[in-house]
Amino acid sequence: MTDLKTVAEILRAQDNIEILTHHYPDGDTLGSAYALCLALQSMGKNARVVTSGIVAHKYDYLKSSMQMQIFEAEFVVSVDVAAATLLGDNQREYEDKIDLCIDHHGTNSLEARHIYVEADAAAAAEIIYALIIEMGVVITPEIANCIYTGISTDTGCFRYTNTTPRTHRIAAELMSLRADWQKVNAKMFEIKSREQLRLERMVYRTLDYFCDGKVALIYTTMDMLKDAGIRDDEVEGLASIPKSIEGVLLGITMREKEDGSFKISVRSNEGANAAEFCGLFGGGGHPAAAGCTVFGDLDTVRERLISAAKGIL
Amino acid sequence: MTDLKTVAEILRAQDNIEILTHHYPDGDTLGSAYALCLALQSMGKNARVVTSGIVAHKYDYLKSSMQMQIFEAEFVVSVDVAAATLLGDNQREYEDKIDLCIDHHGTNSLEARHIYVEADAAAAAEIIYALIIEMGVVITPEIANCIYTGISTDTGCFRYTNTTPRTHRIAAELMSLRADWQKVNAKMFEIKSREQLRLERMVYRTLDYFCDGKVALIYTTMDMLKDAGIRDDEVEGLASIPKSIEGVLLGITMREKEDGSFKISVRSNEGANAAEFCGLFGGGGHPAAAGCTVFGDLDTVRERLISAAKGIL
Repeated sequence: MTDLKTVAEILRAQDNIEILTHHYPDGDTLGSAYALCLALQSMGKNARVVTSGIVAHKYDYLKSSMQMQIFEAEFVVSVDVAAATLLGDNQREYEDKIDLCIDHHGTNSLEARHIYVEADAAAAAEIIYALIIEMGVVITPEIANCIYTGISTDTGCFRYTNTTPRTHRIAAELMSLRADWQKVNAKMFEIKSREQLRLERMVYRTLDYFCDGKVALIYTTMDMLKDAGIRDDEVEGLASIPKSIEGVLLGITMREKEDGSFKISVRSNEGANAAEFCGLFGGGGHPAAAGCTVFGDLDTVRERLISAAKGIL
Repeated sequence: MTDLKTVAEILRAQDNIEILTHHYPDGDTLGSAYALCLALQSMGKNARVVTSGIVAHKYDYLKSSMQMQIFEAEFVVSVDVAAATLLGDNQREYEDKIDLCIDHHGTNSLEARHIYVEADAAAAAEIIYALIIEMGVVITPEIANCIYTGISTDTGCFRYTNTTPRTHRIAAELMSLRADWQKVNAKMFEIKSREQLRLERMVYRTLDYFCDGKVALIYTTMDMLKDAGIRDDEVEGLASIPKSIEGVLLGITMREKEDGSFKISVRSNEGANAAEFCGLFGGGGHPAAAGCTVFGDLDTVRERLISAAKGIL
């Protein structure tokens, strides 16, 4: 484990740098990677971001002011990648070539020459913010946008438990540095596609309550996705729906997958334990948010979940 | 216009203080009032909060640690009340008796002996935070909860345009002072009643698009409210639904009222002006959020709105 000053020195000594995100990248891994890339480019270095899996179009603005540079990479940095498997398609090529790993997951298990993990950072982007300052780079509005995106998405706009006073203080600084925070938040939290909305409309029709309203369950099927005209990887934000209903302790979301299994996401409020529930089906996670996979047809899986919920409440 | 130091001195000299909120109070007027009340009580003074109109149950926690004190009021403070009419049922009794007006609306028109308005404060609660510090009162977790509630609700959890770097810095301090920010945000932004959800389900069925998807319109009728089992004043958060759809410039929400009129809320994205639109119907507001009232049956009003939208786009 290196300190941030050393991380800055290590990067200062390099000229041709590749930055890896985790697969199916989210706002934090992308925001961190592009912020670092822009900072390194402004120091006169060659740098590029290498992603894996589908990158949603809503993140396009993050790379709008990035230069495309042709160079042979001599140094590889990973950001927000907690384990080698999370490199996705890049795992085979890169897993034994990572020179510097920057992450905020306490469980980080990546092999790398230098490892810098700050488990109490709400987002990897919080670390990148401090690192860029340490490197003496001026934070442009574009860099501020990237960092704000990482922080805002990883904290659910300052609502999740990982948010700290430092998170808010950095947000204040990024606003002063002219991050386009309103546009970022609108893109990340407000705007939904017509397809997503159509699916939600269908999902609301599947909502049902059990155990005197202490359990709420919703589901999607492959047919519903087809009818809504939405790809499986474009679906988001469903898991929080059943949990947000007054009186619900356990909110269960079932999503049918192509292989005929159901991916189950469970969110719980005080008085129920999502990890305990998912443990019954070989899954796991945190007390408030957990998941598991169950094979079977809709009705059978649904029945199994409901009777398990009755058992633990 | 007084300065904050003078406001603190004025309050220090008083012992029996009544604090007025605006009618149908929201998180900011209530959070500000209860924070100030708790602070004054901790200084050994008598203080109470006087509200007007229905106060939603979700705000009950704000007054959980307040003492009920019997006393004759000698000094009246209003918080977050921009005009005398906004005192609601309290207008007749109080409008000429306000000693101190504390507000963050630049348009404030209240008559009061002392007036303190900070138009660039995101919430009245930001002013109350600074005032309590100025009075030398220790901010307890309960007071921090009240202030956090005001700030978080009036900024849509740090998303609305009124948010400033100061807003984030105060949030950071309130977290350090042990505000129960997670519970506050869950209560204010996440949890929906089954009735609200039932209504939303119906509202989604009314969603329609016009002008190549640049206009989206939803509506509620008195019958829908009855079917959902929800009171008119309990309905919230609908106006942001049509505006949040990808490609929509003008999001229109129609709500039928008891007198047969429709209350129209319009929200717009870049490229459309909500105030201009509402101006066509004798209403007004801001470019991004405006309102008006239109009389007529559902279909007629809907047609008028749609053709007006076609006209301005």
